[in-house]
Amino acid sequence: MAKVKIGVNGYGTIGKRVADAVAIQDDMEVIGVAKRKPDFSARFAINKGYALYADSKENEKLFKDAGIEVGGLVEDLVNEVDLIVDCTPGGIGAKNKPMYEKAGIKAIFQGGEEHEVAGFSFNALCNYDGAIGRDFVRVVSCNTTGLCRSLYAIEKVVEIDKVKAVMVRRATDPWDSKKGPINAIVPVLHVPSHHGPDVQTVMPHINISTMAVAVPTTIMHLHCVMVDIKGKVGEEEIIEAFERTPRIILVDGKSGITSTSQIHEFSRDLGRPRYDLYEIPIWRDSVHIKDDTIYFYQAVHQESDVVPENIDAIRAMLEIEKDGKKSIEKTDRSMGIIS
Amino acid sequence: MAKVKIGVNGYGTIGKRVADAVAIQDDMEVIGVAKRKPDFSARFAINKGYALYADSKENEKLFKDAGIEVGGLVEDLVNEVDLIVDCTPGGIGAKNKPMYEKAGIKAIFQGGEEHEVAGFSFNALCNYDGAIGRDFVRVVSCNTTGLCRSLYAIEKVVEIDKVKAVMVRRATDPWDSKKGPINAIVPVLHVPSHHGPDVQTVMPHINISTMAVAVPTTIMHLHCVMVDIKGKVGEEEIIEAFERTPRIILVDGKSGITSTSQIHEFSRDLGRPRYDLYEIPIWRDSVHIKDDTIYFYQAVHQESDVVPENIDAIRAMLEIEKDGKKSIEKTDRSMGIIS
Amino acid sequence: MAKVKIGVNGYGTIGKRVADAVAIQDDMEVIGVAKRKPDFSARFAINKGYALYADSKENEKLFKDAGIEVGGLVEDLVNEVDLIVDCTPGGIGAKNKPMYEKAGIKAIFQGGEEHEVAGFSFNALCNYDGAIGRDFVRVVSCNTTGLCRSLYAIEKVVEIDKVKAVMVRRATDPWDSKKGPINAIVPVLHVPSHHGPDVQTVMPHINISTMAVAVPTTIMHLHCVMVDIKGKVGEEEIIEAFERTPRIILVDGKSGITSTSQIHEFSRDLGRPRYDLYEIPIWRDSVHIKDDTIYFYQAVHQESDVVPENIDAIRAMLEIEKDGKKSIEKTDRSMGIIS
Amino acid sequence: MAKVKIGVNGYGTIGKRVADAVAIQDDMEVIGVAKRKPDFSARFAINKGYALYADSKENEKLFKDAGIEVGGLVEDLVNEVDLIVDCTPGGIGAKNKPMYEKAGIKAIFQGGEEHEVAGFSFNALCNYDGAIGRDFVRVVSCNTTGLCRSLYAIEKVVEIDKVKAVMVRRATDPWDSKKGPINAIVPVLHVPSHHGPDVQTVMPHINISTMAVAVPTTIMHLHCVMVDIKGKVGEEEIIEAFERTPRIILVDGKSGITSTSQIHEFSRDLGRPRYDLYEIPIWRDSVHIKDDTIYFYQAVHQESDVVPENIDAIRAMLEIEKDGKKSIEKTDRSMGIIS
Repeated sequence: MAKVKIGVNGYGTIGKRVADAVAIQDDMEVIGVAKRKPDFSARFAINKGYALYADSKENEKLFKDAGIEVGGLVEDLVNEVDLIVDCTPGGIGAKNKPMYEKAGIKAIFQGGEEHEVAGFSFNALCNYDGAIGRDFVRVVSCNTTGLCRSLYAIEKVVEIDKVKAVMVRRATDPWDSKKGPINAIVPVLHVPSHHGPDVQTVMPHINISTMAVAVPTTIMHLHCVMVDIKGKVGEEEIIEAFERTPRIILVDGKSGITSTSQIHEFSRDLGRPRYDLYEIPIWRDSVHIKDDTIYFYQAVHQESDVVPENIDAIRAMLEIEKDGKKSIEKTDRSMGIIS
Repeated sequence: MAKVKIGVNGYGTIGKRVADAVAIQDDMEVIGVAKRKPDFSARFAINKGYALYADSKENEKLFKDAGIEVGGLVEDLVNEVDLIVDCTPGGIGAKNKPMYEKAGIKAIFQGGEEHEVAGFSFNALCNYDGAIGRDFVRVVSCNTTGLCRSLYAIEKVVEIDKVKAVMVRRATDPWDSKKGPINAIVPVLHVPSHHGPDVQTVMPHINISTMAVAVPTTIMHLHCVMVDIKGKVGEEEIIEAFERTPRIILVDGKSGITSTSQIHEFSRDLGRPRYDLYEIPIWRDSVHIKDDTIYFYQAVHQESDVVPENIDAIRAMLEIEKDGKKSIEKTDRSMGIIS
Repeated sequence: MAKVKIGVNGYGTIGKRVADAVAIQDDMEVIGVAKRKPDFSARFAINKGYALYADSKENEKLFKDAGIEVGGLVEDLVNEVDLIVDCTPGGIGAKNKPMYEKAGIKAIFQGGEEHEVAGFSFNALCNYDGAIGRDFVRVVSCNTTGLCRSLYAIEKVVEIDKVKAVMVRRATDPWDSKKGPINAIVPVLHVPSHHGPDVQTVMPHINISTMAVAVPTTIMHLHCVMVDIKGKVGEEEIIEAFERTPRIILVDGKSGITSTSQIHEFSRDLGRPRYDLYEIPIWRDSVHIKDDTIYFYQAVHQESDVVPENIDAIRAMLEIEKDGKKSIEKTDRSMGIIS
Repeated sequence: MAKVKIGVNGYGTIGKRVADAVAIQDDMEVIGVAKRKPDFSARFAINKGYALYADSKENEKLFKDAGIEVGGLVEDLVNEVDLIVDCTPGGIGAKNKPMYEKAGIKAIFQGGEEHEVAGFSFNALCNYDGAIGRDFVRVVSCNTTGLCRSLYAIEKVVEIDKVKAVMVRRATDPWDSKKGPINAIVPVLHVPSHHGPDVQTVMPHINISTMAVAVPTTIMHLHCVMVDIKGKVGEEEIIEAFERTPRIILVDGKSGITSTSQIHEFSRDLGRPRYDLYEIPIWRDSVHIKDDTIYFYQAVHQESDVVPENIDAIRAMLEIEKDGKKSIEKTDRSMGIIS
C-alpha cells in the first residue's frame, strides 16, 4: 500500500517530534516540513532528509542568506500532501486553515488552537472513532491529553462524580532562555482555569474544574488530581486500571523517583530520542482513596505526550485504520512506548 | 504593670522575628535569646541589645572563639523568664520540653513539633480562649496558619462541607543556598499530606484533605483552595468576609500583582522589617464559586505569618489579655498589620 | 537654607528608591514623581505623600480610571523643580532630555543611557569634583558603580596595570515574573562586554576588559575580579584599603556568608528599607594575590547601590556641597550606610 | 583479537555512560557493573544486559529485597576483569585502590580523586602517550577536560603566557532534586580555585589561575576564558585551531544558540543517548583578541565530556592502541562524535 503523504507546518517543539514520529511509520511518510527561521533546527531537518519549506516569501530570503536551501513555500507544500499537521504557535493554525481548505487537504491542529477551529478535539483512547474520515481534527494539549488518559482509565472501573485538579506547570520549555519566572509562583488568576473545559471538549460528560500555577522549572508539568467517585473501588483496582491503560506508566518513590527530575533521568536512561516521555507517569505510592475521593499525582512531558496522538489522528482521518486500539498498538510499537 | 519576661530559644528564621515582635510590645520584654552558632546573626542580636545565650557548653566555646560574648547557656536563660518561645528546628522542641518543665516556666512550640508536645495547637482567630492560662501551646505552621485564617473567614458566612487544598510550597528560605530542587517539582508522595490533619488540630470540625508539592522558589508558598459548601453564598460575600477578617488582605492582578514576586515587592514597599508579610494575601480576582465550590488562591509568607500568633499566644498563656479580639488588635497595631 | 526642589521621572526600581533617599535629606525635597502605570506602586507613592504625575496625557486617563488622582503631567512637574532625576527605562532618558532643556532644569540620567546623553559619567568617590555645577550628569550603572568603588580603593595603595572581570549577573529583579532564564547560563556574546568601556567613562586611565553571563537568580550580581598590578602590595593592605573606602563592606565565609543569599539575609537583618544594600560587599576570605594579580569576589545589589550616588550628584550639580568627601559622609549618615 | 574485559565500579552519572560507551567498542566489553542501591537505574543496567554486582554484602541484601538479582559483590567482579573503571563518588576511589591492587588489575579513577591516587592525570589530546601501559590513570574532571582541550588547541598556533578563567558551574546534575541553591550565586571562596592546579596535572607548563561560582542551573557549566599570549595571532586562526581539534565544536549566536539551553536542545536534536554532548562547544562569535589576550566562552556538559576520555585511557593502559590520534578517531567514530 502506498504511504499517505504528510506535511508538517511549524518545525518547533511539537513539529519536529511529529515529523520524526511520522518518518518511522510504515504507512505514512514526511513529504516536507515548513519553518520560519533558518536556525540550527533547520539544518537538522535537512540532515534528516526532510524537504524544507519557508513559511513565507519574506522568510525564504533569510534561509537563502543563511545558505540553507528550501524547496519552496508552505503554499507549495500543501499541494503535495494528503494531510498537514499544523504545529505552528497557538492561534496561527486558525489563520492557516483557509490555505488548507483551498488546497483541499485534511489538517490536524494542536491544542493551542480553539476547539472550534477543527470542530473535533481528539484523544486516541477516548474518541478515535469520532475522528474517522474527518477533514479537521484538533489534538488536545499536553495537559488535557494527560488528564484524558487517567480519567479514561478510572472510568473503566468506577463512576466519576466530579474532578478537581491543580496543574503545576513548568513555565517554559528546556530550549528557551527568555521566559521566566525565575523566583516566583504565578497563578492563573482566571478560575477555574481553561483546562477543565478543555477536557470536556473530549469527554463532555466529565464534571471537572481546574486551577493552575506556573513555576520555575522546564522539564515537566505535574498534576494533583482529586476525583470524587460514586460507588466503591479499591486503590489496587485503580492502580491496575492505570497499568492496563496504554500510554500510562506507574513510577514510585521507593525506586528513587521522587520528583520530576528523576522521571527525566528515567526517560534519558530509556534511551528515547530527546529523552521524550510519551507516556503519562503516575506515582503508584500517591494513589490514595479517602471519603469517596481518589487522589494521585501524575506528570506530563509537555514536549512529547501528544506526539503519538497525532499519529493516531492521521490514521483515523485518512481511514488507514478504523480500529483505534490497533492504531494505538501500532503507534506504540513503532515508538517504543511502554505498554 | 511590669512587663512579662520572655526568652527565645533558637534565633533563626522564626526566632529572630519573634524576638523583634516581643521587643516592640508594651506588655512584654525580651530577656534573652539562645543560639547555636556564632554567625553574623549572633552579632545582630547583640547589636539589638538582646542578651545572647549559647545552646550548649560545647557551642559556648565557639562563641568565645569568634569573639562574641554570651551571657551563659540556655539552661540559665530559662531561669530568668516567665515564658520561653521555642523556635528551634522541628523535633528539637520536644527534647527541650523537660528543661522548661524543670524550670517551671511556660513554653510555646512552633509548628515543626507534633501537636502532642504541647497538647494544644493555636491560631489566634480560631481558639484564643483555649490557650488562656495554659502552660504549653503550639503555634501551628505557616501553611496551617494560612488555611485556618481563610477557612475561619468563610465559616462566618457559609457552612463548609469539605475542603481540598493543594499547597505549592517554596522549597527553601531566602537565606539558604544549599537546599534544592533547582529544576524539579517534588510532590509529597504521602497523600493526603499532613497539612489537612494539622488544620484539624485547630479546627477539628473541618473535613479537609491536602496535597503538596515543593517548587524551586524561595519567597512564598501558594495555596490553591477549593471549599465545597452547604448553602448559598455569593462571591462578593466571600470577598467581604476576607476583608473583614484580621490578618487577611486582598490583592489583585489588575493592580499588577500577578504572582508571588509582586507580593514580595508589595511587602518591600510597605516598609516592613525584612519585607515580612504577616497577613495572608488572597487574590480577589481568583475568588470564584461554581457548583457549590469556592475557589481561590492565597499566598503565605513562610517566614513571618506566625509571628503575630506567637505574640497573642504569649498574652493568652500568661493571662495578660483574656479577650482574643483585643490581643489581636493590640498585636496588629504594634506591628503595623493591615486590618 | 531653602531645600532644593527635586523631581523624579520614572517610579520603578531606581526611581522609588531615589525619591525615598531624597526625602530623608535635609537639603533637598521631593516635589513630585512621574509614573506610567496606575499599579500598586502608584498608591504607595501617594501614601508616602509624593505628588504623582502621569507620564503622558494618555496614561493620565488610566490613573483616573483606577481612581488614583494625579497632579498633572511630567511636563508640569519639570516646571516646578530645580533638578529632575530621570529613572525611566534605558534609552527613554535620551528622549526626555529636550523636555528638561526646554524647562531650563538640570537632570541626572541613569546608567541605562549612553554616556553622551549627559556628557559626564559620575561616581562620587572617583569624580565628584567634575560634576560640580554641571547641567547634565549620568550616574553609572550598578555594575559599573561596583567596579569603580573597588578599583578606586585598590588604586590608593598600588598601581593597576590591567583589570579583567567577569560579571555573573542576576537575570532579572525580584519583582519580575516574566523574564528568564529558568535553567540556563546566558553569555553576553559581544566580548569584551560593555562593562569595561563603561568603567572607563568614569576612570579613563584604567585598562579593563570584562565578560558577562546572566544566570537564574534575582537578588544580586557577583563579580569575579582579577587585577594585574605593577609593584608590590600585601593582601592585608588591600583588605584595609577596602575597609577604609566608603560604600564598601567586607563579609566573610567564616561568619556564614557563603553566597549572595546570606548577603541578602544580612541586609534584611540590617533593617534597611526593602532590604537594600547600598554598599559593595567584598569577600574578605577571597582576597588573594598571586603572581602580581589581585583576585577577589564582590557582590552588587543591583537595585540600590547607585541610590546614594544620585544624592551626591544632586549636591554637586546644584553646588550645595563642593567637597565630595563631605557629601558622601552626609548621604551615608542619612541612609545608615556602614562606613 | 579477544576483547579486553572491563568492569565499571559505580553506576551513577559517569559510570552508566562509561559502560554504554565500552559496550559499543569492538575491542572491549563490559563484564559487569557494581552499584550501591537497587533503584530504577539498576533495572536499566539489567535490561541492557550488564551483569550487576553489589558494592557490599550489606547492600546485596537490599537488591534481593527489591527483587533484583545480582551476580555477586564488587570483590568478585574485580577478579573477572582486565581493568576496572572506578566511577564511585569523589574520595571513594582512593579507598577502593587496595582492592584493585590485590586483584592485580589496572584501574581508571575519575577527577573526583586526587592526582596522587593514580599518579597520572589524563587527557587524550594532551598526554595519551604517558598513559601507555600504566596500571593507574586518573581521567580529569569535566571542567579540567574542557580547559585542556581548548588550551591544547590554542597552543598549536600561539604561545600561551598566562590563563585566567572563571567557571560558572551548574550547581547539580539534572537527576537531582535535593541540592541547591535555588536563588543564589555561590562563589568558591578559596581563590584561586582548584581548577587551575588541576589543569596543571595534565599540562604542567601552563600558568593558569581560576575562579569559580555555582549557579542555579543543571544542564551545563560555562567557562569565561581569558588567555594572555606571547606573539601575534588572528581571531580566525584561533577559530580554525578550534575547528581542527577533535572533541571541540563551534556554535554561534546567529544560528540561535545564545545560551546553554539552546546547546542542550542542539544535543537533543543530535539524537545522542541521554542528550549527551561529548564535545566542548565554543561560541565562535565570542572569540575575540584584544591587547594580547584571547577571550572566549565555552560550555561543558558535565555528565559526558569525560566519557570518550575513559575509552581512550583504557586503550592506552591496556596497550591496545599506541597511537593516541588513532584511538581518539576510533572512539569518536563509535560514539558519533563530531569532528
